[in-house]
Amino acid sequence: MDKLLEKQLQNASLASREMMHVDTAQKNEALKAISQALLNHIDDIIIANEKDLAVAKSNGMSDAMMDRLLLNKERIESIAKDVLKLVDLDDPVGQVIREIHRPNGLLIKQVRVPMGVFGIIYESRPNVTVDIACLCIKSSNVCVLKGGKEAINSNKTLTNIMQNAIKSILPDYTVQLIENNDRAMVTQLITANDYVDVVVPRGGAGLINHVVKNATVPVIETGAGNCHLYIDKDADMKKAIDISVNAKIQRPSVCNAIETILVHKDIANTYLPKMVEAFDGRVEIRGDEITQSIISCHKATEQDYATEYDDYIVAIKVVDSIEEAIAHIYKYSTKHSEAIITENQEAADLFMNSLDSACVYLNASTRFSDGGEFGFGAELGISTQKLHARGPLALLEMTSFQYKVYGNGQVRK
Amino acid sequence: MDKLLEKQLQNASLASREMMHVDTAQKNEALKAISQALLNHIDDIIIANEKDLAVAKSNGMSDAMMDRLLLNKERIESIAKDVLKLVDLDDPVGQVIREIHRPNGLLIKQVRVPMGVFGIIYESRPNVTVDIACLCIKSSNVCVLKGGKEAINSNKTLTNIMQNAIKSILPDYTVQLIENNDRAMVTQLITANDYVDVVVPRGGAGLINHVVKNATVPVIETGAGNCHLYIDKDADMKKAIDISVNAKIQRPSVCNAIETILVHKDIANTYLPKMVEAFDGRVEIRGDEITQSIISCHKATEQDYATEYDDYIVAIKVVDSIEEAIAHIYKYSTKHSEAIITENQEAADLFMNSLDSACVYLNASTRFSDGGEFGFGAELGISTQKLHARGPLALLEMTSFQYKVYGNGQVRK
Repeated sequence: MDKLLEKQLQNASLASREMMHVDTAQKNEALKAISQALLNHIDDIIIANEKDLAVAKSNGMSDAMMDRLLLNKERIESIAKDVLKLVDLDDPVGQVIREIHRPNGLLIKQVRVPMGVFGIIYESRPNVTVDIACLCIKSSNVCVLKGGKEAINSNKTLTNIMQNAIKSILPDYTVQLIENNDRAMVTQLITANDYVDVVVPRGGAGLINHVVKNATVPVIETGAGNCHLYIDKDADMKKAIDISVNAKIQRPSVCNAIETILVHKDIANTYLPKMVEAFDGRVEIRGDEITQSIISCHKATEQDYATEYDDYIVAIKVVDSIEEAIAHIYKYSTKHSEAIITENQEAADLFMNSLDSACVYLNASTRFSDGGEFGFGAELGISTQKLHARGPLALLEMTSFQYKVYGNGQVRK
Repeated sequence: MDKLLEKQLQNASLASREMMHVDTAQKNEALKAISQALLNHIDDIIIANEKDLAVAKSNGMSDAMMDRLLLNKERIESIAKDVLKLVDLDDPVGQVIREIHRPNGLLIKQVRVPMGVFGIIYESRPNVTVDIACLCIKSSNVCVLKGGKEAINSNKTLTNIMQNAIKSILPDYTVQLIENNDRAMVTQLITANDYVDVVVPRGGAGLINHVVKNATVPVIETGAGNCHLYIDKDADMKKAIDISVNAKIQRPSVCNAIETILVHKDIANTYLPKMVEAFDGRVEIRGDEITQSIISCHKATEQDYATEYDDYIVAIKVVDSIEEAIAHIYKYSTKHSEAIITENQEAADLFMNSLDSACVYLNASTRFSDGGEFGFGAELGISTQKLHARGPLALLEMTSFQYKVYGNGQVRK
């Protein structure tokens, strides 16, 4: 392992032991200090960010990507404000999940404890650096961050500001950044089982697949969202249209936006023209043959149904039955979020109880799959795996638990 | 992928969708049918087992290993009885963990759901085949089992008996065995992300490491238990001795037995001779220099402290302080179970709140780290990782959860 990285990970591991003894007040004090320090250093952050933007521009980065990378006064103030929001959230650490009194007198407490060391690998947006570090602090975890190389100057400055702000409040090495942009760093981080407790990749499918394939440290997968909306034959048309528009284009670039709309054949003639009208030319429509016979649109291929566009594009398929819709979702879904629009109780029950996606919706937009919208406060991402965390990966899911067993000399018979 | 394996996994995946609709009564009926079928086919099982034993003998298998492989009438009756015990346990599936009413009228239910398809890889003991299949049934999961090749005839017969017993009660392919002993089957199983939801290796360190290193499917690690007992300077001597004996030799071959005893220097002169007396020659003692100056024993090496003996051997180290004991445990522990013996509240608090092992004990034997002893009923193993399941991996931990969101046309603002 790279010597500097190993030293960082050793320090992180030691810091995680100290974090077990940090209380809520200290953590909140640290969050307030970070928020204030960000506001105090707006100019420094902008200068660092401008360096990244200049490199990005000379490398021919697209405007959309440049916008993701940009930090201005308004955005930094918004980041600082989000940090303060964490102060008011419940501290998950120390919560007693179960208390079991055994006949032999043993008292078993199942208690929430920090996970330990989080290794987080992410891409361009530098605000993520602050978001993640502060979520880790609130949950008594230590983080080792590996951001995108295009944001390295911004990330270094943000990390320095945070480290200085918490210096006298939390253990040293609670927040660390891997500054070396050699790709081997990622591989070493995700196989450092001696030091790292969990790895979370935040980014595109390429990054996530690389981490899942190569990690030996347990991984929480986040983000991939090929989400579906099924318009049942007994759908309320207003709900169907309102939710189609909201779930597709309120913010198409995010993982909880829908990519495919499945339409029951009995309602397709009514729904599809209304949908076209509601999208009002803002969405490229790709449909199967039946769809093409009803509305004017491009042809949808197998590949379309498998694609998370994250864009103003939607795939449409007309289905013979709710069972066909469910089978289609099983075939193509990334198990993130799926919704049914129906007034029929039987259809609703079948849909809600037959899918194994993290979130299933009846008559509501998939855009609600979000820690804030669920009432959990901030989130680290949306987990699409079944182990440990599903859906919003919020503070509660950033903890593990431990059994503390109190006895008085008991031995096993 | 091997064609037959792929077919099995496809069938398992389809069966897992059907298992979402199976109710508690059906599952309990299936368990009773399996229990009865095992009793009805004792002779068939013994005949198959004798084939395995004959092969094992001709391959020069040790007596201890032959005993692990052996199934006789008494053992089969005991397995059948254990299956019946599952009937009385609470069904975890469908339990509502949280019910959240949002200001916008959304009702969010966090509901326990089956994990889906379990891939389980294990070694010689054929009783595991039945234990795991039945735990999976009770938690509405589907299992694909890969047992040791030395037990292949026993496992085939047991699986056939179970499959026939549940044929008219549960979906086909709920329980399947991989009969091909090619080692590539394991690699293919643990990388079959399209079909398998979680992999659990049950066996020695070699098996576990192979799975952790090569799996892309999420893994729950179980079993490795380098457990510690710390005798504090303020220990009650009777508790210290009783628990030392129980934790070391009540059943040394299991993962929750202790391997190392750490003794505070102020109590070593009293404790160590009493320990020797209590072990009464049944345990080989390997101590550091200070230990050797107090009692007659072998020399302990670094390697000893890192070893899970699972045998009548114990490593001893005299420490200067509780902090040194904690540091030693962090260095060598597999994060399974650790215990402190003390009457000193401050020392107890420090130990119980400073270690990140799955189970920590005050004045009780580590041998209690067990689903049955914790009151959870049966278990699939003891998890030593921090993600999802820690400590006893019982029915509750064999489930995932899902957010079911009920709306009335809500869209995100």
